[in-house]
Amino acid sequence: MPCSLARTLSVIGDRWTLLILRNAFMRTRRFDDFHQQLGITKHVLSDRLKKLVEAEVLEKRAYQEKPLRYEYRLTEKGLDLYPILLALVNWGDKWMDDGKGPPIEYQHRNCGRKTRPTLVCSECNEPLSVREVIPMLGEGYKTKKTSIL
Amino acid sequence: MPCSLARTLSVIGDRWTLLILRNAFMRTRRFDDFHQQLGITKHVLSDRLKKLVEAEVLEKRAYQEKPLRYEYRLTEKGLDLYPILLALVNWGDKWMDDGKGPPIEYQHRNCGRKTRPTLVCSECNEPLSVREVIPMLGEGYKTKKTSIL
Repeated sequence: MPCSLARTLSVIGDRWTLLILRNAFMRTRRFDDFHQQLGITKHVLSDRLKKLVEAEVLEKRAYQEKPLRYEYRLTEKGLDLYPILLALVNWGDKWMDDGKGPPIEYQHRNCGRKTRPTLVCSECNEPLSVREVIPMLGEGYKTKKTSIL
Repeated sequence: MPCSLARTLSVIGDRWTLLILRNAFMRTRRFDDFHQQLGITKHVLSDRLKKLVEAEVLEKRAYQEKPLRYEYRLTEKGLDLYPILLALVNWGDKWMDDGKGPPIEYQHRNCGRKTRPTLVCSECNEPLSVREVIPMLGEGYKTKKTSIL
């Protein structure tokens, strides 16, 4: 798969997977907790957790020997998914709410204020919008019939 | 569904849907172009486009009368998905590349420089990372057994 988006989606492009990740960010670690919080079948949960471990987004660690019990923790690769989760939640709060206001708001620990995560340009710090961003071919681009973003 | 992430994922939480949206951001508008670029079956494409139109993420507009032909365009709600697509592509370029470097880079039209879209705090402008963001209950929170982010 030459396209990095397709590769990304092969790992996380699934509704249950993203809900599991959201709960992982909320410090859910144990199979039974994921199961109770998400209301999905143990079969689906087990399958998705296994795939996330194989993709090294979660790591599976024993926290107890007798009986043997595991927990699932976000790796550095997994923690780096945070902007995706935040962007999904932001869009949902804006476009999928029923007029009641956002269920969750965010405080920035460093400055202490209520924050709206904002996507900006790394060079000039201005907010980015789709019309201002021009995709260009980078060094890894192959001249095959691939879709590009 | 009390949870805005679950509602969001019910609209876009699907690999093919996200690939279709990525191509829509690259100005693909016609069914045959989506079909040729994405290599998915017409049945799946048709189904996903229909759902995106129902969710008002895309609008379906006739561009030709005889024969009648339609194109699919991002609505304002759809354009607002851009941070999600960018975040997905960024993560994929960083963690799913095969060492060749990013296939696509981004130029910020306003400042003219190559940009890395960066998530910052709306109040203090510092880059946000997961450990610095504290979720708090907002006005729309219901005290039900819901998972929160």
